[in-house]
Amino acid sequence: MSFQLPDAIAVLDRTPATFRALLAGLPETWITTDEGPDTFTPFDNLGHLIHGERSDWIPRARIILAQGENRRFDPVDRFAHKHESAGRSLAQLLDEFAELRAGNLATLRSWDLSEQQLSLEGEHPAFGPVTLRQLLATWVAHDLGHLAQTARVMAKRYRTDVGPWRAYLPILDR
Amino acid sequence: MSFQLPDAIAVLDRTPATFRALLAGLPETWITTDEGPDTFTPFDNLGHLIHGERSDWIPRARIILAQGENRRFDPVDRFAHKHESAGRSLAQLLDEFAELRAGNLATLRSWDLSEQQLSLEGEHPAFGPVTLRQLLATWVAHDLGHLAQTARVMAKRYRTDVGPWRAYLPILDR
Repeated sequence: MSFQLPDAIAVLDRTPATFRALLAGLPETWITTDEGPDTFTPFDNLGHLIHGERSDWIPRARIILAQGENRRFDPVDRFAHKHESAGRSLAQLLDEFAELRAGNLATLRSWDLSEQQLSLEGEHPAFGPVTLRQLLATWVAHDLGHLAQTARVMAKRYRTDVGPWRAYLPILDR
Repeated sequence: MSFQLPDAIAVLDRTPATFRALLAGLPETWITTDEGPDTFTPFDNLGHLIHGERSDWIPRARIILAQGENRRFDPVDRFAHKHESAGRSLAQLLDEFAELRAGNLATLRSWDLSEQQLSLEGEHPAFGPVTLRQLLATWVAHDLGHLAQTARVMAKRYRTDVGPWRAYLPILDR
């Protein structure tokens, strides 16, 4: 086990600026590229991260910390961003993500969680019992997963353009 | 085929700031984590990108543009960064990468390449004939591949910490 709360927060804190550095001001063609039907564009990845800020991580942490009778989480809607982001600009999403994340990390820091609290459990709708520590570790890995996914979907635009180099670029066939 | 030079430059231009946003100031433990023997840490990924700025992309583009008798590229040393980065700090590498990339993109822009020039060929030591267009598309995909790799190696620190969520996080088992 590697999880330490300050290390986790250090990564969570950087994700909005990382997406901004990668995507802000890019030609539209990079933002709307995908990997085929029902896959995420870079824009979708950002919208999905925003949905998580509103509906997933902190709301679930609150359920765990409350230790009420019903500790079962609502399922995540993995496609909620499709309607939530409709008609919005990338610049708006980048601002919104940064603002929501900053607020959520202020909340998380304000809790000043103990190791004992990190071991408290909630109930995942599919997995059953999960700890607050596992939830927070997942928040970090989920950020990094969507960063990697965003980079991958962008790279795939050039899958044929790279010619024979494709053999050296495993990201193009993942 | 999707390659357009201004779009490619837009991505190449953002990579140093993206790595800076992701990595600058992180606890050391995130910078030196790896995926096992002979794999790249985030620090190694950055060192490898720096080596490419010095030895790979622009030097190979020059060989193609010169159209001399010998158009064969030198092989890339994929582990050159191990000695080149030894003893240096992450902050130094971030600065060096940004400086080298800015210089290389200034060179690339100054060439004002035509479609005809983009179709000129060099000789890859393993693949044989490759075009300048393929080389530049590969530069972009290579950047994005190492960004995805950096995010992946970081995420894997929490492979067991996430508990049952591992089933929903394919990046942890790639």
